[in-house]
Amino acid sequence: MRATRLFFPTLREVPADAELVSHQLLLRGGFIRRLAAGVYSFLPLGWRVLHKVEQIVREEMDRAGAQELLLPTLHPVELWAQSGRSETWGPELIRVSDRAEREYCLGATHEEVMTDLVRAEVRSYRELPLMLYQIQTKFRDEPRPRGGLIRGREFVMKDAYSFDRDYAGLDESFRKMDEAYTRTFRRLGLTVRAVEAEAASMGGTEAKEFVLPSEVGEGRFFSCPSCGYAASEEKADYRLPEARPDEEPQPLKRVETPGMRTIEQVSGFLGVSADRLVKTLIYEGEGQVVAALVRGDRDLNEAKLKAATGIRTLALASEDTIRRVTGAPVGFAGPVGLRGVTLIADEEVRLLSNFVTGGNEADLHLVNVNRDRDFTVARWEHLRFAVAGDLCPNCAGTLSEQAAIELGHIFKLGTYYSASMGANFKDEDGREKPIVMGSYGIGASRIVAAAVEQGHDQNGIIWPLPIAPYQVVVVVINMTDPAQASLAEEIYQGLGRAGVEVLLDDRDERPGVKFKDVDLVGIPLHVVVGKRAGEGQVEVRRRGVEGAELIPAAQAVTWAQETISAELERLA
Amino acid sequence: MRATRLFFPTLREVPADAELVSHQLLLRGGFIRRLAAGVYSFLPLGWRVLHKVEQIVREEMDRAGAQELLLPTLHPVELWAQSGRSETWGPELIRVSDRAEREYCLGATHEEVMTDLVRAEVRSYRELPLMLYQIQTKFRDEPRPRGGLIRGREFVMKDAYSFDRDYAGLDESFRKMDEAYTRTFRRLGLTVRAVEAEAASMGGTEAKEFVLPSEVGEGRFFSCPSCGYAASEEKADYRLPEARPDEEPQPLKRVETPGMRTIEQVSGFLGVSADRLVKTLIYEGEGQVVAALVRGDRDLNEAKLKAATGIRTLALASEDTIRRVTGAPVGFAGPVGLRGVTLIADEEVRLLSNFVTGGNEADLHLVNVNRDRDFTVARWEHLRFAVAGDLCPNCAGTLSEQAAIELGHIFKLGTYYSASMGANFKDEDGREKPIVMGSYGIGASRIVAAAVEQGHDQNGIIWPLPIAPYQVVVVVINMTDPAQASLAEEIYQGLGRAGVEVLLDDRDERPGVKFKDVDLVGIPLHVVVGKRAGEGQVEVRRRGVEGAELIPAAQAVTWAQETISAELERLA
Repeated sequence: MRATRLFFPTLREVPADAELVSHQLLLRGGFIRRLAAGVYSFLPLGWRVLHKVEQIVREEMDRAGAQELLLPTLHPVELWAQSGRSETWGPELIRVSDRAEREYCLGATHEEVMTDLVRAEVRSYRELPLMLYQIQTKFRDEPRPRGGLIRGREFVMKDAYSFDRDYAGLDESFRKMDEAYTRTFRRLGLTVRAVEAEAASMGGTEAKEFVLPSEVGEGRFFSCPSCGYAASEEKADYRLPEARPDEEPQPLKRVETPGMRTIEQVSGFLGVSADRLVKTLIYEGEGQVVAALVRGDRDLNEAKLKAATGIRTLALASEDTIRRVTGAPVGFAGPVGLRGVTLIADEEVRLLSNFVTGGNEADLHLVNVNRDRDFTVARWEHLRFAVAGDLCPNCAGTLSEQAAIELGHIFKLGTYYSASMGANFKDEDGREKPIVMGSYGIGASRIVAAAVEQGHDQNGIIWPLPIAPYQVVVVVINMTDPAQASLAEEIYQGLGRAGVEVLLDDRDERPGVKFKDVDLVGIPLHVVVGKRAGEGQVEVRRRGVEGAELIPAAQAVTWAQETISAELERLA
Repeated sequence: MRATRLFFPTLREVPADAELVSHQLLLRGGFIRRLAAGVYSFLPLGWRVLHKVEQIVREEMDRAGAQELLLPTLHPVELWAQSGRSETWGPELIRVSDRAEREYCLGATHEEVMTDLVRAEVRSYRELPLMLYQIQTKFRDEPRPRGGLIRGREFVMKDAYSFDRDYAGLDESFRKMDEAYTRTFRRLGLTVRAVEAEAASMGGTEAKEFVLPSEVGEGRFFSCPSCGYAASEEKADYRLPEARPDEEPQPLKRVETPGMRTIEQVSGFLGVSADRLVKTLIYEGEGQVVAALVRGDRDLNEAKLKAATGIRTLALASEDTIRRVTGAPVGFAGPVGLRGVTLIADEEVRLLSNFVTGGNEADLHLVNVNRDRDFTVARWEHLRFAVAGDLCPNCAGTLSEQAAIELGHIFKLGTYYSASMGANFKDEDGREKPIVMGSYGIGASRIVAAAVEQGHDQNGIIWPLPIAPYQVVVVVINMTDPAQASLAEEIYQGLGRAGVEVLLDDRDERPGVKFKDVDLVGIPLHVVVGKRAGEGQVEVRRRGVEGAELIPAAQAVTWAQETISAELERLA
């Protein structure tokens, strides 16, 4: 491709509304353009990167034995009602009606449609195991689209689904996908980390996220440098230190705390640090009310509470429920004297004595509360989020915390969808059983942005070679010099014949402009044809690597081929 | 791929609601499944065919110098308001609102979004010409989805757009696309005909359709076997015979025709054949009212009326307008005494004398009406559709009529979108001018069905080799015979190593079942490993061709390679 013909409108200015570096550089380099909030066009350079990402993902899915298909975007909303997700997804699901007033939603993910297909077509254990996947545009009405391609409302995903006779089969499918994901990210040139992820709240049994550590990531994970343990913030466990020696229990005191509802207010008012306060959070779901206790300076991890209670739809209780079980307005709940609730407490609370809680009366807190003496806990669980410095659950190390961009997610669903939607098969023993499922996602368009977050400098993007829009750019310093123009053309043609993806910067621009654009766009290998063209010499360099080398022009094609092969082999 | 692993649920029964052969066979062969009216899933075999179609289209677009990109599906509805099409498309455009109540429509075509992109990014004549394309899912709420993939509500299209400085540039872009389309359809193995198409009603200047002649097609075209003239039904012109000698005008008569409104009713009541009646059709648009006269046995071609009047929004007049201009209820309009209308008549009416028209009074018709004496026509035009047997407009031949499936459409848009949306560039002379545009569509998913309409027999599909899901199938007659199983495996491996796309039918089924499936699925080349496996002999045959040949197994790979090369070369 010749730069004079390529449609890549670069921008000199940093676009005002783009905060993330990847968003800025993809806009500035002419890879993408915004059409609406969270909705982007891929221009030719961006499309090339996306297509390469898709192709690597496709090859690794095929290698893992998954078969590609293509499911629709328009989903009859009844299917989502069958799984119960038309309700739980709420406004994130984009709904449309057709001219006959039939209701559809736009595919946000495809468990329902896939399960519907398989329940109609798979009859026997002989047809299992089965792995199916697609690469397709998804639609989610995110409340806060962000960072260009990082969190869009219309985005490209690979979603795969496995279908097995039993959990042993699911384990095997999951393992194959795990391997495929590891290979995929390596081949994409991304330094991605696999971390344990929360599964129970979706009805699954095991899950992993593949995340790119990055300051701009919305997710966090905890890891132990000693043993390699790594888990998402929702999943991360920890070990509590040995119990502190209890203080002598002091007499329970009622203290007026007029209008003091938050931890900060009560802590300030009473002069007691937040770690001596205990929060009481009231949840409800499936007709049950649950009160969860955590230390005042900790955050409750709802996923853990759901897993501990087995109530998937658990949500903060209504004001009515809170009034009923506490007898008080919202903001004064405490464990002493609660009625009709299951009391579950974070293990850390067990280490406290003489702490402060709500008093279950308006404007009242209790001081010197002690467990067992003043209230009885039904179950002690790990309910809080991990924090940096927590002890590793597996070894003597301590956990550290990192922000990360989630790029992939693999998930043992079990029979959640097959049971609710009736996707059964007849097993060898003649019995009807629900198919055991897994689901496996990769954010293809998000990877384009994540690759830029991983690889950039002050001058622009540094693409991993396997997904660069072009592998090599030939820059002509002075197009009006016939020696330069013809030598560049010769090298460009030679690279093309050798199967190298090459861009010829044949624009009649100053060298400064060309080098700026070439660095901005981030093509990995540069062949610069300049003053020494007459002597048959060209300069070669790699984007992001200091220094350049003068080589005979006749060797330029070989240099490019060898550099490319070595890099692709390194990432194979 | 092994058939024991491939997900291709075949059906023995013809699905009840599938009328077209392509719809039946694609369902029966396990290529597609219906999710909702006009909404289909592509199963692995169907996806492979679609992907191959896309790949050939992509290669020819690239060769023509078009650059691939990917535009969004969610379009802000304001863009469609700017072009005026949010109204003219009506309920065919699927609309959605996001959580902030902003309105979008789902991309039904992308002229607006593409023009929006180009108006923001192209500034100068130096950046032109430019050709951009995408392969993407489109959404149209068709009132009557039909025939599986023939007319869907969610379907895959390639849409390309050209941007030029002037009409000479557009001519050149159009020519390149015309060539690319011709090559594309040849490479797809489809016998497609290019026919002139109507352009003026969309504001364009020239258009061509690429159609596959087929009885099940919804479109029709007219062609002349003598000179090669061919045009879509909307565009087709004709030559009228020399005028018949006029009869002597008879005195005008008023005849009571109580309740007789249709041509059939009036013709029967008066005992006058329909070709001696003249219909008066009242249209309105852009504040004007137009009355169009055509012979009673002819159909008015609205596209021609729009082209003749230059009123693109012309539509049948409201009852109010009809009452106002005729003074009578609907059904009795006639040319004598009409008020406030432009009277345009089909040339064929000029050949009539003493004809019957409506009387512009309830239950009244006029007999022995004569032009010029009884009414005055503002313009004589070709307004009716062509019919088989019409004289060719270009030579002495006569036109014949064929039904056809439209697969592609190329269109000189001119400045329709650029002017309405303000997509200008600065020309060499320093003046701002609207960009001159073309648009070029190919129905990728429709091609999958059209290929089946073209190629099938009573046993199933006969795919063109370039888009067959697999090129070769190796059928093992008896999987329990080790000689057969191992020879088949050897040939399967050999074909795979040779880069041939091969399916191994290793299922433990009766030969009858296997041959039925293999014929149904339509894979072009068959290698049958049977009883003669022990002697190293296999049978080879081509789908759709009578007879088989016994060859040494060692030659099977070469036979396949040579047959494939020859076929691809024939279609190159």
